Amino acid sequence: PPVKLLVLPGDGIGPEVMHEVGRVIAWLEKKRGMAFDITHDVVGGASLAEYGVPIRDEVIEKAWAADAVLFGSVGDPKWGHVGFEKRPEVAILKLRQELGLFANLRPAKVFDALVDASTLKPEVVRGLDIMIVRETVGGIYFGEPRGIETLPDGSKRGINTEVYTTSEIERVARVAFDLARKRDNRVCSVEKCNVMESGLLWKEVVTAVHAREFPDVELSHMLADNCAMQLVRNPRQFDVLVTGNLFGDLLSDLASMLTGSLGMLPSATLGAVQENGKRPALYEPIHGSAPDIAGQGIANPIAQILSFAMLLRYSLDRQDEAALIEQAVSNVLASGLRTADIMAPGMARVSTSVMGEAIVLE
Amino acid sequence: PPVKLLVLPGDGIGPEVMHEVGRVIAWLEKKRGMAFDITHDVVGGASLAEYGVPIRDEVIEKAWAADAVLFGSVGDPKWGHVGFEKRPEVAILKLRQELGLFANLRPAKVFDALVDASTLKPEVVRGLDIMIVRETVGGIYFGEPRGIETLPDGSKRGINTEVYTTSEIERVARVAFDLARKRDNRVCSVEKCNVMESGLLWKEVVTAVHAREFPDVELSHMLADNCAMQLVRNPRQFDVLVTGNLFGDLLSDLASMLTGSLGMLPSATLGAVQENGKRPALYEPIHGSAPDIAGQGIANPIAQILSFAMLLRYSLDRQDEAALIEQAVSNVLASGLRTADIMAPGMARVSTSVMGEAIVLE
Ligand SMILES: CC(C)[C@H](C(=O)O)[C@@H](O)C(=O)O
Ligand SMILES: CC(C)[C@H](C(=O)O)[C@@H](O)C(=O)O
Repeated sequence: PPVKLLVLPGDGIGPEVMHEVGRVIAWLEKKRGMAFDITHDVVGGASLAEYGVPIRDEVIEKAWAADAVLFGSVGDPKWGHVGFEKRPEVAILKLRQELGLFANLRPAKVFDALVDASTLKPEVVRGLDIMIVRETVGGIYFGEPRGIETLPDGSKRGINTEVYTTSEIERVARVAFDLARKRDNRVCSVEKCNVMESGLLWKEVVTAVHAREFPDVELSHMLADNCAMQLVRNPRQFDVLVTGNLFGDLLSDLASMLTGSLGMLPSATLGAVQENGKRPALYEPIHGSAPDIAGQGIANPIAQILSFAMLLRYSLDRQDEAALIEQAVSNVLASGLRTADIMAPGMARVSTSVMGEAIVLE
Repeated sequence: PPVKLLVLPGDGIGPEVMHEVGRVIAWLEKKRGMAFDITHDVVGGASLAEYGVPIRDEVIEKAWAADAVLFGSVGDPKWGHVGFEKRPEVAILKLRQELGLFANLRPAKVFDALVDASTLKPEVVRGLDIMIVRETVGGIYFGEPRGIETLPDGSKRGINTEVYTTSEIERVARVAFDLARKRDNRVCSVEKCNVMESGLLWKEVVTAVHAREFPDVELSHMLADNCAMQLVRNPRQFDVLVTGNLFGDLLSDLASMLTGSLGMLPSATLGAVQENGKRPALYEPIHGSAPDIAGQGIANPIAQILSFAMLLRYSLDRQDEAALIEQAVSNVLASGLRTADIMAPGMARVSTSVMGEAIVLE
C-alpha cells in the first residue's frame, strides 16, 4: 500500500521549501518504486486565516491516520495579537501533545563544505555531529496549574508548572540510549538537579534506566547551565544529549547555531508505538517560517528535504533512500551551489527551486 | 567609619583567589585612605565540614550587618552525596533569598588582549560588552509547590513551580533600564511568552515599566531559545539583557563562555534599598570552585578582583577606585602576564599570587 503522508506546509517559507520535497517524492516514485498517498492541509497563520484557529481537530485526526506528518513551519507577525490560545505556535504544540510525540530528535551537524559558516572557529566545529533528544510533551510546556491570576491589590501573578514522572523520563531516555548505540555510544543527560527536584528525579530515572537496560552505553550527567557553556567551549565532546522540554528548547537551538547554517537542519519528533504497530511521527526543519524572506524564492530547502530523509529513515525504515538523499545534499554543496543563507565567496548562489532540482538530479 | 565587609571564600580555589583581593584592599587602605572592617566566615563545603550545614543563620546575620558581601565560590565533589537540603549550593541560594538579592548583574566582556581565547571568531566577539541582568530570588528556583512525590503505583513525580509577580518583574526591570542608561541605552527582555504564561506576564510588565518610567531607553523582546541562538550568531547586537532566574542561569553562562575566559568575569547581586538606606549586595566571580586545580596556586584571581571592583562601584560608589583596578587588570594583561587558564603562545605564564601582585603594582 502507498505510504500515507500528511503534509502541513504552514506559514512563511514553509510552502516554498515544502514544494521542493515534492520533487524528491516524485523521484522516489519514479526511480525507487515507492508510492505515496499525500494529503495537504493548513496550520498556523494559514489556518487562522481560513478557519480562525491555528489547527483544526480534523487535522489531528488526519495526522493519526497518516504514516507520518511532514511539517513546514508556523508563525506569522500578522497573527502577533490573536492572544495566547490562538497563536500559530499552538499548531505544533497541539500536534505534539495530541499525538504523544514525546521525543524530539535534533541533529546538529556541520557539513564539511559549510564549516566556515559557523561563528565558531573551524577547528572547534569541524566534524561536529551531536544528536539532541528533547522531551516534548511534558515539563513546563504542559504542566498544570498554569496561567495569570490577578491578586487582591490588582497586581498579577504568572504561574507555570514543571512536572516529570518516572515513565515520561524513562521513555525518552530509552530513545536516547537506543540512538547512542547506533552512534558513538555515549549519552549525556542534562538537568538542574542542584536547584530543581524535577531535575533530581530526571537524573535518578535516567541513571536507573541506564543501569537496568543500557549498561553498555556510556552515561554522564551535566547541569544545564554548564551544558550551555560546554556547547560553546567544546561541542564535539558530546554524542547524544537527552534533556527536558524547556532546556531542550534552548540547548538544541544553541547547538543548531553552532553549525552556522540553520537552513540545513532537520528534526524528527516521535511518539509511542501503538497497538496496531504504527508509531506517530512528525518531521520538520528546525528553522522558522522566516516571514522576512517568504515568497522570494530564495529560502534554503535543504532542512525540509533532510526532514523528509529522516522520515524515510525513522518512519519507513528506508535507510538506503534516506542515505541517498543525504549524500545528494552533500554532493550538491561540494559542487558549490549555495542558497543565500549559506552563500560564501566563490560559490554559486541559487534559488530555492534550483537547489531542489540539483539535489534530485544528483 | 570603615567599610564593613563580610568575606566568604568558600571552597576549592575560592580561598586562593580571595587572598589576592587582600592585596588590593591593603593597597586601597594605604594609597587611597580607605578603611575596611573585615569579617571572614565559611560557607559551602567548608561550612559542611565544620558545622554540618552549607551556611549558618549567623552568617546570614553577618551579611545583613555588612555593607557588602564578597563571596568566593562553593561546591566540592566531596559533598556530592549529602542530599538536596545540604548541598553546598544552598549557601548561595540562601544568601540570595534571605537578603532579597534579586538582581544578578553579569557582565560578559571581551578584553582586547584576550580576544583569541574565545572559541568564536575574533571578528564576532571583539569588543563584546553585554550586561545580563538576571532575576535571582523568584521563578522556578524558589516557587512552591516543589518536590518529589510517590504515586500509588510506586513511580514518582517531580514538581517545580515557576512564579513571577508584577512587583518582582518590575523591580528587576528597573535595574536593567537604569543600567542601560549608563551604557548603550538598550534593553532586550527575554522569556518564552509563546509557551509560558509567566513569560507572558514578564513581557507585559517589562513593557509597562518601560512606557511609564523609561521611555527614553530602547526596549526589545526576544524568546529565550532565539536568544541562545543570537548570542552565538551575533552577540554584539546586545547591550543589556534582562531575564528570569532559570533563563538567566543558562544565558549568562553561555554569554560568559563567549569571552573564552571565565576566570576574568565578575558578578554583582543586588537587593532592595532598606529603610536605613543600605542596600544588601553580594559580589562573586562567575567561575566555580574548580576543585581540580585547587591548592596549586595556579587559579586566575582576576574575576575575584574584578568582583571587588564591582563592589567598590555599586555598593560604595567609589567609581574612581573601581576604574583604577579595572585599568590595572587591562594593563597587566597587555603586558603579557597570563595565568594558566588564559595562557597563549608568547605570553608569560604566572601563578595566582604573581598575577595578584602585578595588578597591585600597576
Ligand atoms: C514554536 C515553539 C512553541 C517551539 C517550542 O518552544 O517548542 C519551537 O521553539 C521549537 O523548538 O520547536
Ligand atoms: C550554584 C547554583 C545554584 C547557581 C544557580 O544555578 O543559580 C549558579 O549556577 C549560578 O549561576 O549562580
